[in-house]
Amino acid sequence: MALPSHGSNPHYLYESLNLSQPEQFIDFSANLNPFGPPPALQEKWTEAYELITTYPDPNASSLTSKLATQCHVEENQLLVGNGGAELITLIGRFLAGGRVCIVQPAFSEYEAACRSAGCDLIDHTLKDGEWQLDPEHLIEKMDHLDAIFLCTPNNPTGVVYERDSMMALLRESEKRNCFLILDEAFVDFLSDDATYAQAIPTFSKLIILRSLTKMYAIPGLRLGYMIAHSGIISSIKALQPHWSVNALALIAGELCIDQEDHMTKTCELIEKERRKLHQFFKENNYIHSTSSVNFYLLKDLNLDDQTPLLRFLMTNGIVPRHTENFPGLEGRWLRFAIRTKDENRTLMEVLGKWRR
Amino acid sequence: MALPSHGSNPHYLYESLNLSQPEQFIDFSANLNPFGPPPALQEKWTEAYELITTYPDPNASSLTSKLATQCHVEENQLLVGNGGAELITLIGRFLAGGRVCIVQPAFSEYEAACRSAGCDLIDHTLKDGEWQLDPEHLIEKMDHLDAIFLCTPNNPTGVVYERDSMMALLRESEKRNCFLILDEAFVDFLSDDATYAQAIPTFSKLIILRSLTKMYAIPGLRLGYMIAHSGIISSIKALQPHWSVNALALIAGELCIDQEDHMTKTCELIEKERRKLHQFFKENNYIHSTSSVNFYLLKDLNLDDQTPLLRFLMTNGIVPRHTENFPGLEGRWLRFAIRTKDENRTLMEVLGKWRR
Repeated sequence: MALPSHGSNPHYLYESLNLSQPEQFIDFSANLNPFGPPPALQEKWTEAYELITTYPDPNASSLTSKLATQCHVEENQLLVGNGGAELITLIGRFLAGGRVCIVQPAFSEYEAACRSAGCDLIDHTLKDGEWQLDPEHLIEKMDHLDAIFLCTPNNPTGVVYERDSMMALLRESEKRNCFLILDEAFVDFLSDDATYAQAIPTFSKLIILRSLTKMYAIPGLRLGYMIAHSGIISSIKALQPHWSVNALALIAGELCIDQEDHMTKTCELIEKERRKLHQFFKENNYIHSTSSVNFYLLKDLNLDDQTPLLRFLMTNGIVPRHTENFPGLEGRWLRFAIRTKDENRTLMEVLGKWRR
Repeated sequence: MALPSHGSNPHYLYESLNLSQPEQFIDFSANLNPFGPPPALQEKWTEAYELITTYPDPNASSLTSKLATQCHVEENQLLVGNGGAELITLIGRFLAGGRVCIVQPAFSEYEAACRSAGCDLIDHTLKDGEWQLDPEHLIEKMDHLDAIFLCTPNNPTGVVYERDSMMALLRESEKRNCFLILDEAFVDFLSDDATYAQAIPTFSKLIILRSLTKMYAIPGLRLGYMIAHSGIISSIKALQPHWSVNALALIAGELCIDQEDHMTKTCELIEKERRKLHQFFKENNYIHSTSSVNFYLLKDLNLDDQTPLLRFLMTNGIVPRHTENFPGLEGRWLRFAIRTKDENRTLMEVLGKWRR
């Protein structure tokens, strides 16, 4: 049985590895805020029930307006979607039949969306272990491309690219008429403001994707948005099903983006835990990616294929994300979310046990 | 300002008609169960909160299995979607560039979905006031078509087509290699079992759409499904975004389809109220469609364009669905949902006031 194409829903991974699922396990395979959703959401939950009985606003007007203000863009430069995955599918259709480059390793939905829209795909694979952007090589390819997908901060490595390299890419993509799709799904987990949203007015080929399901831990509701020039937004909106974003996602989005404290507290936890984990990995001979966000890649240097470690962890109630379907990784790494202090401690205990 | 393309969200209709919205109004523009969702759903609501914090099952396995059993089809013959509108958009893509006929008047999303997928569209418009199916004329066109969209029971007329005519269409669509898409979004409101689901194994060109948002009054959650041969289902699933159906819709679907009492009670109310309304219309010189479900078309015979009546009703807190964007109706009718006894009485009072 093939390994599942994504993290989360751990029973699929247990099944495909033919392992029995322990009663207790910790899911490190989904990159979600370990604190869960902001408490304000639970407080409104009973009241929100009524929303299920009427159609959602098909224009998501109220949330669009709030998000546009927050991102300093116009309302017609922003489109709310049924999770990042829907927006990626819509971009695939927008690019239908075009020549598209994916900077790898990256979230696997770019490839799936472009393939189902009949795009020609090429990979631009970053150097394993460093995963730094090499803008000059990417720029060389641009003249033959309609679009480039780039995930920053990168999923699955957690690496943030240098601002100078990014700005060079942006300028050249504009000059060479090549869409640049920046997936900023995890940008909220960076302590300093690392978005490229402020570049939207200047760069007409730039499309930015954002997610509300990671920082606010609401993947069950599905909610994301994209920002771009208004012409791009209206073309893509025309491809979106009516009432695509459910009423609870809309109200949750409005509530969540006001919870700045929750975000600050989360970023502090993540940074503290990351330092602790890195120290442990160094002392115990594990290699990790130089991540700046809430997940990282890890490998046991003694193994090329990490499957034995994956199986050991799963048996011991630790569920990482396999990397078999990430081009450029192909199973030589495992991905872990940074979770609560206690959960990370359990992970370190099990990794210590594997060392012994 | 153009009239909104759909019912529900009444503030858009008030805005476009340049009318101020009264504090109290009754929304007859959305065809939803007047009892609201089954009480079992509200009982589970607090518990369901936890579901928002994890990714939904991307395969909707549990709900798919339950629905397949209920429809007497195989699990690979059924696809759950983010509301009927998403499934219609996906069918549009599946038919991309094809020649498609829409039996009009009908739900406007068929046209929108097919247009955005570059299909060639023709309308087959049924005779105003009767809206009976004329299978022989439709069959004549089939050799030049890739697909036909037919809504049955029909939205917006509420008319149910004769079974013999439907079976003739089914047989000919199979013989002439033309997809027949039957939208059964409102079939649950018919007292006798009027679905064509049992024809799925025999007819390889048949695609049936079903909705859970009308009978169970959960349009805010978005939930529908389609049934067809497994080859069609797998082609269409490949076009669907990952995690398209949110976790609350999945659990609500599982809960709702077990509530047979709620459905029976609803059908009884609708039938009783419909008879009462028809009697009132007859006595007060209004013409209505011969609907068998939970909505109907209505007109004041003294008016060709019903806009003056629409404006009068809206001012008096009654919100119908305009029919300006239904080919074959073009504003000569208004559509009303059958709501609770008290709400229907209010409607009759206001219609009585208009007569005076």
